[in-house]
Amino acid sequence: MSAPTTARGYGISDTKKYTDFSVQEFKLKTAGPHDVTLDIEFCGVCGSDVHTITGGWGPLSTDWVVPGHEIVGKVTHVGDEVKEFKVGQRVGVGAQVYACLECDRCKADNENYCPEQVDTYNAPFPDGVMAQGGYSSVIRTHDRFVFAIPEEIKSEEAGPLMCAGLTVYSPLKRNGTGPGKTVGIVGIGGLGHLAIQFAHAMGAKVIVFSHSANKKDDALKLGADEFVLSGEKDFAKPYFDKLDFILSAADVHNLPISDFLSMLKVEAKMVSVGLPDKEWEGLQPQIMASNASAIGTTHIGSKVECNEMLKLAAQKNVRPVIDQILPMSQAGKAIEGVKENHVRYRYVLKQDLA
Amino acid sequence: MSAPTTARGYGISDTKKYTDFSVQEFKLKTAGPHDVTLDIEFCGVCGSDVHTITGGWGPLSTDWVVPGHEIVGKVTHVGDEVKEFKVGQRVGVGAQVYACLECDRCKADNENYCPEQVDTYNAPFPDGVMAQGGYSSVIRTHDRFVFAIPEEIKSEEAGPLMCAGLTVYSPLKRNGTGPGKTVGIVGIGGLGHLAIQFAHAMGAKVIVFSHSANKKDDALKLGADEFVLSGEKDFAKPYFDKLDFILSAADVHNLPISDFLSMLKVEAKMVSVGLPDKEWEGLQPQIMASNASAIGTTHIGSKVECNEMLKLAAQKNVRPVIDQILPMSQAGKAIEGVKENHVRYRYVLKQDLA
Repeated sequence: MSAPTTARGYGISDTKKYTDFSVQEFKLKTAGPHDVTLDIEFCGVCGSDVHTITGGWGPLSTDWVVPGHEIVGKVTHVGDEVKEFKVGQRVGVGAQVYACLECDRCKADNENYCPEQVDTYNAPFPDGVMAQGGYSSVIRTHDRFVFAIPEEIKSEEAGPLMCAGLTVYSPLKRNGTGPGKTVGIVGIGGLGHLAIQFAHAMGAKVIVFSHSANKKDDALKLGADEFVLSGEKDFAKPYFDKLDFILSAADVHNLPISDFLSMLKVEAKMVSVGLPDKEWEGLQPQIMASNASAIGTTHIGSKVECNEMLKLAAQKNVRPVIDQILPMSQAGKAIEGVKENHVRYRYVLKQDLA
Repeated sequence: MSAPTTARGYGISDTKKYTDFSVQEFKLKTAGPHDVTLDIEFCGVCGSDVHTITGGWGPLSTDWVVPGHEIVGKVTHVGDEVKEFKVGQRVGVGAQVYACLECDRCKADNENYCPEQVDTYNAPFPDGVMAQGGYSSVIRTHDRFVFAIPEEIKSEEAGPLMCAGLTVYSPLKRNGTGPGKTVGIVGIGGLGHLAIQFAHAMGAKVIVFSHSANKKDDALKLGADEFVLSGEKDFAKPYFDKLDFILSAADVHNLPISDFLSMLKVEAKMVSVGLPDKEWEGLQPQIMASNASAIGTTHIGSKVECNEMLKLAAQKNVRPVIDQILPMSQAGKAIEGVKENHVRYRYVLKQDLA
């Protein structure tokens, strides 16, 4: 049986009607020797899906876009040169489906920073076919962007690790999170609740900052050593010069950045993996002068890091907290829940197109 | 002869009349066993002087402020425990005159990030005496903040090294500037023209970015390998993924930051030592997602770095370019020239109060 050439998905045509999903058939990328095709079983609902289909990050690239990049399914076809995966194997796909694999960045396991990288949806493959996301029946991509799921991890739980998990793991890892280090995690949602677990699993002391007093118990259960209400006056003062790294998963543009930066040690960094629709407020170089701190962001992670992340998750029982598993046909309801902040951690969609 | 208890200086009382200097007598800090007192011979005119006395960085701390923190003079008195300096020796003082010297930062040669650090002017010493700057006859401070001037460097040239020189040397050093590295320097003024020389002296390839075509020849003479007009469309494109570090000395809030960051290698940093009066425009985390870059600032440098910097300057002939040496009584004219961008590199004031 040859690999399928099309799939069906739930897509959005109008950023103003971002919960009005319609089912359409769409073309899959041309199957190449390194491509893996999978039948999708679950797809997590990420904040990026909402930013994209509401137009917050700009207009849609085509007239119909299928979101979703926290994908888990079973391999149905592999190209001739695929050695890592077999038909029937349970695998995941995250927020990236293409890189040149030949540039210096790709060769240095920084394929997530390849200038030719293609997002999992709302972007064209080099062959011109539009990449469509995981709110769909089938996805096909190069084996560099496919990840084996350890058997300890359930399929529905593996989904959110593909984007949210990797997105927090990579900056934690690259900024030295480990024993003897103190890490601040800002915001406890889909990304933040995994960041707490990973930072704890990596051996760091974890200080969680949140506006939501009602998330304190969760934070502590997830592995936080301390919980700080960042809405309170002078919340940062007791932590002056205490943090080796801050990972912000808060998806807002008006964080009290100056307070957060003040807690960093000399030359330490704050990385925001929350990517709000607007530019940061109050960011003047002066606020970093007291400690030579810096602020930046990162973009998902590499395959090497994804495999490390999955191994650590399996070993240390790092799992997403799933609010609800919804049939994929209720994608609109899930999107609404994320947009309106009703979701605490993660919704996952279960395939119902087959 | 006991150490003097007062000095005279040129100070400003009204941020709206920032060229109307008046001469007054002021109190020096209490002389301690580690204090060095010097008769000031020269003082460079730094952009910080202008930001402070124009109120750009906020109101004045007292009703009369003497600016100036690029100070060179001769030692007239030393405390009992001063071992490094002798009466008659030529020394410099920069932009910091106090730190606790007991905290972790101080002990780790990060006294420039000590939370108790005191600026050279517009700030009080712990004994309550206001620190006054170098547009004056005498300054006294702890020997940690006094630097021996190598004999190869003329006194008038040493002044600008005390703040501008150290301010660019420290971030270049801490961000790995050296052979095999490519460094971008943004802006060629008082700080930038020294940054070009230091980056070159440290062995890096130096790419200079400026809006001023008429500074190209100077940039190349100072050690730039390439000169790029940053006002031109797509100026950054040829340098994609080429820069290991960017040091911006541009004192403006509306730099094309996105373009600059795009030239950085993965996880590399841009440091702005220009501290504009307003917050940065256009800084959204997304613009750093393509390469995990970060942006920050630094604050002068440590004594260890200052001594290294002076040694390197002596060895490799790094010198400020002095537009004009003016008598200190013409401080207002110098301030006006900096404020209106008439100065190309540095004015230096020569003592005339004695």
